[in-house]
Amino acid sequence: MDDRKVLISLDDGSSDDDDAIVPQKDTVQSSKPIQDFGSNLTEEPTPTSLSTEAPGISGNHQEIDTDQPPLLGHNALPIVTNIPINGNAGHSNRDIENSEPIFHLRSRTAAASTPNYESLDYEVCENTLFQEEQRQRLTERFSLRKDVIRWIIFIQIGIITALIACTIDIIIEELSELKYAFLYRSVQQNVPLSDSSSGDLVIPYLYWLLFSILPVAFGAAMVTYIEPITAGSGIPQVKSYLNGVKIPRIVRIKTLAVKAIGVITSVVGGLAGGKEGPMIHAGAVVAAGISQGKSTTFVKDFRIFKAFRDDHEKRDFVLGGGAAGVSAAFGAPIGGMLFSLEEAASFWNQNLIWRTLVASIISVFTLNIVLSAYHGLNDFTFTGLFNLGKFDTPLKFDYFELPIFMILGVTGGLLGAAWNSLNTKINKFRKRFIPWKIGKVLEAVVVAMMGVTLACLMIYFINDCRPLGNDPTNNPVQLFCEDNEYNAVAALWFQTPEATVRSLFHDPPGSHKILTLALFTVVYYVLSCATFGLNVSLGVFIPTALVGAAWGRLFAMLAFYLFPEAEFLHPGKYALIGAAANLGGVLRMTISLSVILMETTGIESSFFFPLIIALISAKWVGDYFNEGIYDTQIQVNHVPMLTWEPLPQYKGLAAREILSSPVVCIKLRDRAHYIYHVLKKCDHNGFPVVDDVHGDRRSEGRVCGIILRSQLIVILLKSLYVENKHFWLPETSIQTFRDVYPRYPSIKDVRELDEKINYTVDLSMFMNPSPVRVNPHDSVPRIFQIFRALGLRHLLVINNENRIAGIITRRDFIYK
Amino acid sequence: MDDRKVLISLDDGSSDDDDAIVPQKDTVQSSKPIQDFGSNLTEEPTPTSLSTEAPGISGNHQEIDTDQPPLLGHNALPIVTNIPINGNAGHSNRDIENSEPIFHLRSRTAAASTPNYESLDYEVCENTLFQEEQRQRLTERFSLRKDVIRWIIFIQIGIITALIACTIDIIIEELSELKYAFLYRSVQQNVPLSDSSSGDLVIPYLYWLLFSILPVAFGAAMVTYIEPITAGSGIPQVKSYLNGVKIPRIVRIKTLAVKAIGVITSVVGGLAGGKEGPMIHAGAVVAAGISQGKSTTFVKDFRIFKAFRDDHEKRDFVLGGGAAGVSAAFGAPIGGMLFSLEEAASFWNQNLIWRTLVASIISVFTLNIVLSAYHGLNDFTFTGLFNLGKFDTPLKFDYFELPIFMILGVTGGLLGAAWNSLNTKINKFRKRFIPWKIGKVLEAVVVAMMGVTLACLMIYFINDCRPLGNDPTNNPVQLFCEDNEYNAVAALWFQTPEATVRSLFHDPPGSHKILTLALFTVVYYVLSCATFGLNVSLGVFIPTALVGAAWGRLFAMLAFYLFPEAEFLHPGKYALIGAAANLGGVLRMTISLSVILMETTGIESSFFFPLIIALISAKWVGDYFNEGIYDTQIQVNHVPMLTWEPLPQYKGLAAREILSSPVVCIKLRDRAHYIYHVLKKCDHNGFPVVDDVHGDRRSEGRVCGIILRSQLIVILLKSLYVENKHFWLPETSIQTFRDVYPRYPSIKDVRELDEKINYTVDLSMFMNPSPVRVNPHDSVPRIFQIFRALGLRHLLVINNENRIAGIITRRDFIYK
Repeated sequence: MDDRKVLISLDDGSSDDDDAIVPQKDTVQSSKPIQDFGSNLTEEPTPTSLSTEAPGISGNHQEIDTDQPPLLGHNALPIVTNIPINGNAGHSNRDIENSEPIFHLRSRTAAASTPNYESLDYEVCENTLFQEEQRQRLTERFSLRKDVIRWIIFIQIGIITALIACTIDIIIEELSELKYAFLYRSVQQNVPLSDSSSGDLVIPYLYWLLFSILPVAFGAAMVTYIEPITAGSGIPQVKSYLNGVKIPRIVRIKTLAVKAIGVITSVVGGLAGGKEGPMIHAGAVVAAGISQGKSTTFVKDFRIFKAFRDDHEKRDFVLGGGAAGVSAAFGAPIGGMLFSLEEAASFWNQNLIWRTLVASIISVFTLNIVLSAYHGLNDFTFTGLFNLGKFDTPLKFDYFELPIFMILGVTGGLLGAAWNSLNTKINKFRKRFIPWKIGKVLEAVVVAMMGVTLACLMIYFINDCRPLGNDPTNNPVQLFCEDNEYNAVAALWFQTPEATVRSLFHDPPGSHKILTLALFTVVYYVLSCATFGLNVSLGVFIPTALVGAAWGRLFAMLAFYLFPEAEFLHPGKYALIGAAANLGGVLRMTISLSVILMETTGIESSFFFPLIIALISAKWVGDYFNEGIYDTQIQVNHVPMLTWEPLPQYKGLAAREILSSPVVCIKLRDRAHYIYHVLKKCDHNGFPVVDDVHGDRRSEGRVCGIILRSQLIVILLKSLYVENKHFWLPETSIQTFRDVYPRYPSIKDVRELDEKINYTVDLSMFMNPSPVRVNPHDSVPRIFQIFRALGLRHLLVINNENRIAGIITRRDFIYK
Repeated sequence: MDDRKVLISLDDGSSDDDDAIVPQKDTVQSSKPIQDFGSNLTEEPTPTSLSTEAPGISGNHQEIDTDQPPLLGHNALPIVTNIPINGNAGHSNRDIENSEPIFHLRSRTAAASTPNYESLDYEVCENTLFQEEQRQRLTERFSLRKDVIRWIIFIQIGIITALIACTIDIIIEELSELKYAFLYRSVQQNVPLSDSSSGDLVIPYLYWLLFSILPVAFGAAMVTYIEPITAGSGIPQVKSYLNGVKIPRIVRIKTLAVKAIGVITSVVGGLAGGKEGPMIHAGAVVAAGISQGKSTTFVKDFRIFKAFRDDHEKRDFVLGGGAAGVSAAFGAPIGGMLFSLEEAASFWNQNLIWRTLVASIISVFTLNIVLSAYHGLNDFTFTGLFNLGKFDTPLKFDYFELPIFMILGVTGGLLGAAWNSLNTKINKFRKRFIPWKIGKVLEAVVVAMMGVTLACLMIYFINDCRPLGNDPTNNPVQLFCEDNEYNAVAALWFQTPEATVRSLFHDPPGSHKILTLALFTVVYYVLSCATFGLNVSLGVFIPTALVGAAWGRLFAMLAFYLFPEAEFLHPGKYALIGAAANLGGVLRMTISLSVILMETTGIESSFFFPLIIALISAKWVGDYFNEGIYDTQIQVNHVPMLTWEPLPQYKGLAAREILSSPVVCIKLRDRAHYIYHVLKKCDHNGFPVVDDVHGDRRSEGRVCGIILRSQLIVILLKSLYVENKHFWLPETSIQTFRDVYPRYPSIKDVRELDEKINYTVDLSMFMNPSPVRVNPHDSVPRIFQIFRALGLRHLLVINNENRIAGIITRRDFIYK
């Protein structure tokens, strides 16, 4: 007998007085035995081996008509007929309201360590109401209409996401231009021209500090005080959402507003971050908002798109929105589609991908029209959008460069892994030592000041003057340089990070000193590492690309310095490879990254090969040390996200070793009061529905369906009882349940059931009659595949007689 | 009671003498009641409603120790204890060998109309043997090693596919060059120069005929007599394979050889077809061959990669092979990956896609190296591969052109749908009136002659002379033209179709007369329609693109003729859009097509938008009329391929209305003789394994697993009986079963079980203990999603007591 069985025996031996509901901090059913994961698991399924113990305990249970809490479910007992039913009045009168819920031994570990994340219902609940609706709408016309509406929504998502992206883009550009032009003038006024040795940099420095601190403080305050979920890039959150984890407030309009303002202020403030991640988040919010036809923030229901009001449909739209966001951020429609696929989708549905691609294309197209109009290009010619600047001459490479690209990739992997690790440490430190809100705002201000100071120091101490003419910036600062020269260091700093990436890709050879770039790389590496994790809305893509581009270009310059005859050492090319390698090392999204880089710089597919070489090396090296930054963030936050493959420690296990039991079940026709108290006492979200129950031994019944907490609450709220069926039956439909989506009422909203204490609920028309079921001996990799492919929330483990043996939720695949 | 129940009652009422096995022509279990699909289906599941009839019939069944065939399973009867077991000697001696199998009423319709396709086992059978192997290999090191080997195989697939593609490419190019150069000289010799009115074209015509007939006849004969499966493009077959349908001999080396020779001869012979489709098929064969480490054609087992010998692993490799094939054919790595996804994959597995992409890139890279070396480019610079010629100046478009692109798309959709419909009609005619092999070869010859004749007539009658200098062909025929001029009509015909597409894309404006192109379009449209479906190896991509490019260019020329000031009417651009529209209309693969066209012509992502506009219009218009040509071919051949969504007529149905029953079951410990006779008598491929069986009423047992026909045959062949367990148990492993993969022995290879007549087989270690099970009331769209997402072969329908109610295979989702 292994640990497991001992525990089960403990349960079975517990007296009735100790039986209590099993409430858990985590709201998915997740109590789990503490077990030896390495133990040999070839034994027969538990049910039969326990059968001899059953009759002895079952005698303690009783049929009670009042508000008894669910008994501790005895795990997978076989049918036992002729159970003696001893009515026990003492128990029935026990005051449940006052009895403190007794935490079950096994649930405590999991509950304590993990925060409160719920799952989304990506599984469509095909109950009788749903099927009725389906039948009513079985006509060809309706399903066509629904399909057309879906297309319209996707097109709207593309357009609106692009418009938001444009707005952010233009505001950032205008404000940055104002800021740097002012600083430029300030420098010109305060530093005497043609005097390359001295000058008063203090006044520009103070101005610079001011223009950094003000927006950053404003943005950080908004994020911290109004909507903390908007901190960071938003990609981990969207990824978790698409994976099936409910992240509260992630797709609200308020979130979008704060995010937009947050990203504008941070980029304008000069923090080491980009606007790309937030734009993806923005796309997701837009998608969720439009597709639902209502806004909970504005308490406005447009009464449209009602058929799309469930998690499953919403997910598909959010997928499209994310793709549209990527496309708008980079001008990369295929990259956007692939990003959505690589990061999110688990089931490849041709129609969905097709709609996603169209949304992406529409988004890029809209963005291009608006930006063309804004920049005054009125020749009505679509020229594409190259956010990182177009390589005008096709990049070529020699075969002997491939090993060099590989080495760069390995470097990127190492630097990326170090960056991830360092960033995680900084964030842990932050979490621990800066718990106060004001502290978080101040911290952002300090980092912004640090950036400005470092930049000023670099400008002041490095003398890197270049002739005017091939100046990469709008404001070529002459600072300490001769006439007709500009300060190359200032040029790197006097613009947004995105513009600096563009400079590093496209500046002609010899635009920078080696020392400048080397210092810049180090400073920016540290700065970006300190920035990501601040309480501001910022993406990590651009700073990562910037660091990579810097050291890639640096590599080419060093190599050229050593081998001046090597003409292939085009610095822009190596900056691109470096950016790819660094991105690969930090983000580890190989496929979509390569396509995004291709689309955003206009390089041809022939240069795809070097990019992939660099990316694949970076990914493999990085994966050796840790995970990508998004996954790291998800892990640090204990989001129960399902990976692509089951975790290695689950290999060789069977369902019976990870399932949670006992399970709180509800009878097909159960008493309203019982349901009410189950909901009050335990916060599970799914309850197996059973029939063939002997007395109150619900957890030994035969499984006939599963019902969600939210459905039960609606049933109680609307008083959908058997006894008053004639009142509600005619007007009750699936819409009754959709109306409360997505903010389900809580059980606290249901008032005490005084007069209806003896009413009965018949779940047969509300429950999902087709829950996915597996056997206790099924292997975990197999059930994981089922769970992932079907997007399940609850997986019932049943024995050979269709009686419940346990329940598996996403949490069971993640925490041992 | 609906039709269904009447039928069930009929079964139940049938006397024991009428009970017989239910053999079916189609080897997946597929008998189905003839039922009213429109009937209202809200009633309770059948099991309970039948319960009263059970005891009366069950009394007729008996426990017989000899070779009794499986009884007609009574659909979903509840447990009935105390069944009287009446031994019936008369029955037990019945000679089953001689009794003709009686076809069951319900199975006949489906059996008669559909040919014999089996499913592949994409579901991994996790039986005890498999789990033992998993446990032995649970070490980190092994799973790493398996992963590394997988990568190595994928890289090999990329390289070898590219090498084969190169070989085919170079041979076609060389032979075509020889052929057209000879014809060119022949024309030059026989038609007096500078005499633009007359000349003797008869001799060149005869030569041309000869050089067309010889290769075409040879190729057609090879295809017809040696390996008929190689006819056509191979894409429908690969697509079916990846979908889970076993197409015999599709991935053999012999098939590859015939296909390669077939495609060379047909293209050199001048048929209207391309080499792209066959290359994709070639990639699939290479993948299947390499990954298995053995060749059944050469009876050679390299004893490597044994862990990959099952349908599931092989499918993943074939997916990569197909992608590598597309990439090699077009020089389009992303397009190749997307093609595989769009056409094939149902579960998006990140790692798989990643490997597929790498195989595609390796393939393109190898191809480029070899072709660069062949063409004598020794500068070691990777320039990419643009099979349809690179557009050197970036294509631009004005916004007002978008409606024009849309109109072109609609035209493409109409023309494509018409093409598909016409081609299907021609092929039906062919199938009906040309059944003889020699007739098929002759037909190919006739079509080849027709092509040559039409080309000659066009050249003879149309006087389209253009000045030399911008000549698009290697052999500018002066034929009937002035000095310094060449015949533009001859130029179109005197090269391979691929080269002609290139000409139409890149020839400068004014290279052709309107009349020439109009006639050429019509002729090629008809020719390609007549060609696709001949018994030759040829793809449909290039001729379709050619027709589209021709009418697209024609459109631009006509429009320019009408509006000479419209400078945007670049004929190459419109040829490209026309090609996209026509391809969209015929093939309907929108996403991958657009990317392939982008990659193969080097256009930028900014031109993606017009391409998508044209493709989407073409697809939607085409879909209104019929399906894409590949899907049409699959349908015409009655291949049971699963679509992305369930067919519309299945909406609103439940599992009980499509399941096949009665089901032939086998007991967990069953008699060897019984199994032998079941296999002899019925050709099902999956048998539910049941226990808790009363007497011989197997179909009323409790489901505990499923076993495949192939596994049962191996058990019988290797005599894996309980009685001699000590002999075989030590050396029996999952490898015993893998060794016979993929050509499983037939039951005929098992000799009569004389001495072992009373031996017992214990299936518990061989069967798949975790078959996916659904309820009879589950909706078809739901179970379809499960079936598709998990790549199932058999889906068991069980009642509330875990007893079998029926079985669902892919066929049940396709044929009513």
